[in-house]
Amino acid sequence: MQPDLLSPAHTAHVASQLATRSPLIHCLTNQVVQSFTANVLLAVGASPAMVVDHEEALAFSAIADALLINIGTLTREQALAMRAAIDGANRAGKPWTLDPVAVGPLAFRSRFAREILAQKPAAIRGNASEILALAGNGAGGRGVDATQGAQEAVSAARELAQQTGAIVAVTGEVDYVTDGDRTLTITGGDPLMTRVVGTGCALSAVVAAACALPGSRLENVAAACGVFALAGKRAAAQSQGPGSFPSLFLDALYQLHTEGA
Amino acid sequence: MQPDLLSPAHTAHVASQLATRSPLIHCLTNQVVQSFTANVLLAVGASPAMVVDHEEALAFSAIADALLINIGTLTREQALAMRAAIDGANRAGKPWTLDPVAVGPLAFRSRFAREILAQKPAAIRGNASEILALAGNGAGGRGVDATQGAQEAVSAARELAQQTGAIVAVTGEVDYVTDGDRTLTITGGDPLMTRVVGTGCALSAVVAAACALPGSRLENVAAACGVFALAGKRAAAQSQGPGSFPSLFLDALYQLHTEGA
Amino acid sequence: MQPDLLSPAHTAHVASQLATRSPLIHCLTNQVVQSFTANVLLAVGASPAMVVDHEEALAFSAIADALLINIGTLTREQALAMRAAIDGANRAGKPWTLDPVAVGPLAFRSRFAREILAQKPAAIRGNASEILALAGNGAGGRGVDATQGAQEAVSAARELAQQTGAIVAVTGEVDYVTDGDRTLTITGGDPLMTRVVGTGCALSAVVAAACALPGSRLENVAAACGVFALAGKRAAAQSQGPGSFPSLFLDALYQLHTEGA
Repeated sequence: MQPDLLSPAHTAHVASQLATRSPLIHCLTNQVVQSFTANVLLAVGASPAMVVDHEEALAFSAIADALLINIGTLTREQALAMRAAIDGANRAGKPWTLDPVAVGPLAFRSRFAREILAQKPAAIRGNASEILALAGNGAGGRGVDATQGAQEAVSAARELAQQTGAIVAVTGEVDYVTDGDRTLTITGGDPLMTRVVGTGCALSAVVAAACALPGSRLENVAAACGVFALAGKRAAAQSQGPGSFPSLFLDALYQLHTEGA
Repeated sequence: MQPDLLSPAHTAHVASQLATRSPLIHCLTNQVVQSFTANVLLAVGASPAMVVDHEEALAFSAIADALLINIGTLTREQALAMRAAIDGANRAGKPWTLDPVAVGPLAFRSRFAREILAQKPAAIRGNASEILALAGNGAGGRGVDATQGAQEAVSAARELAQQTGAIVAVTGEVDYVTDGDRTLTITGGDPLMTRVVGTGCALSAVVAAACALPGSRLENVAAACGVFALAGKRAAAQSQGPGSFPSLFLDALYQLHTEGA
Repeated sequence: MQPDLLSPAHTAHVASQLATRSPLIHCLTNQVVQSFTANVLLAVGASPAMVVDHEEALAFSAIADALLINIGTLTREQALAMRAAIDGANRAGKPWTLDPVAVGPLAFRSRFAREILAQKPAAIRGNASEILALAGNGAGGRGVDATQGAQEAVSAARELAQQTGAIVAVTGEVDYVTDGDRTLTITGGDPLMTRVVGTGCALSAVVAAACALPGSRLENVAAACGVFALAGKRAAAQSQGPGSFPSLFLDALYQLHTEGA
């Protein structure tokens, strides 16, 4: 099956919808990227909230419009809060997104990721090594970095989507987003994005936000990747290195909806 | 009662005093804003330290000049450390400041905030929804965002100040700072500050630092808000969006005392 | 004994080696500086990973090329993970680096730092107050700030290196790096680096990365300090204050290996 290219018009539409609807996103994410993730959500016009206690996480994920689960620095205590938050989201019919950071070589998070897969994520976003490992087709990467290209994981992404019912996004130089049947491809971005911590994690937060929008979830998740690729390309064109990139990137995300795409 | 405008001369005086005295501020704050909070304190010339273990927190809050308690990502373990730190500060006669993030809709933090209110905070800084909820006059906002304007919370702020003996700052487009009797208003700032995570939380840290200065605590807390409003306005005038804002804002805070206001 | 000046050619060589070999650095560090630490490692071309659960930390420190232990926000749970990670690193023959943040005045971390000193760190980096306290010659600083100049701690650094077998770096306006016998000095940097949170902590991460390179560990650790001093000087020359410094500093670190030193 030939993947389709994502339409630029749909990317612009989703950029505008995120800002207009300003979905409230409950983020249970890793310790390293919390601030950048929140700033990315604010830049696209969404509203982030990190509520981490298990009692509060249960209640809050029903209030929020969508939930993000990122297991990059998973602890036993955080796993309790994540289970509660997923429970709260599912009972209230709110979509949740999984970012399976470094799944594969690390045992505790891999057990946990497989356990929560049964709780019906709306979307899953990872790099090729993570998607291959989660689908049971690979040992995972080395640490948080992919050791395979995204294209090598497209079949695994399709299988994972079919198994779980989730939209699966495998991101890299080119991104592939699939519902197990149809697959959209997104090009753009810049290699500099791999020299800044948290770009993938923050994309997962925008994927979570896109799951709160009406319309085709496949196309909305692909458009979230499109928003990132477009802003990343613009920011990289102006930046002097990985230090100047993040502020230009956040400005570009903001300008996509304030000045139009 | 008519609120008074804060004098620009007092803002400049407090900006200079923070840098000259460089108070050491013990911050027990939320996971999302720790780095930005520390950088804001360093930019104004104060000295931040995050000491989080309960045994160390007890000892350290007696060494530090002031303590900040921010409950944005409260956990059971952090609550223990906060109780110990407040205890240490109170025994040593050091002022502590409460930032009641998202109090109201979330049960665990709301119980905790009410419990520690009895421990005599020197100052409380929150948005309108938080101050209304803490005073018992509202259900709180949605997540971390205010659903009311600051002016609607001025009466609640006065009551809260009278009940607790704290200086209460309710911040928004206009800030109101009250001791329950006299109320000062601060204008300035920029809406862009709401598109950057942690500006309110970092202001609470500067409020905590202002509580360590000699002179009128009401006027010093109001001046902390004045310092933020002034630097925020200057930074917003130069920035291209929420990405370029934080670095310009920190530079502006620094220039207020190195180049004079 | 007269300290030697570090050769600029060796600094350039180490900057290039870090980017070419891209060592994977397992960081167990404090909550305040995780993002900046990761971005500094990415900017020099290394690969950071924060794996914090004790079970995963044990396994991952054997996979990684080097380990960083920074006790700035030590908790009981983190101490367990750190003991496991050091164990895993030592069994696999991977070097680990200690950053003894605020050791001396705070009891829990001081006991822990003394305990793990017996586990043979490859390197130790701290400010003068921390090195004096760790060597048993001082009470430590006030919070995280040094109350002594680096030169006052050179003898203590030599003793500590002789006792532990570690390379000891005491950093400040001038940096001194010693194996207990030979001592190298590094000049450069800028006072603005003390107005940005995490510069010392991030230097310790680059020291950890330098310990994974072949060649003289003394000279490699000194060159890590040299890389920081050089990038710091370049960034400070262009910056308007502590807000604009970090992005310029990360760009300068990146340019050292992409454009040559």
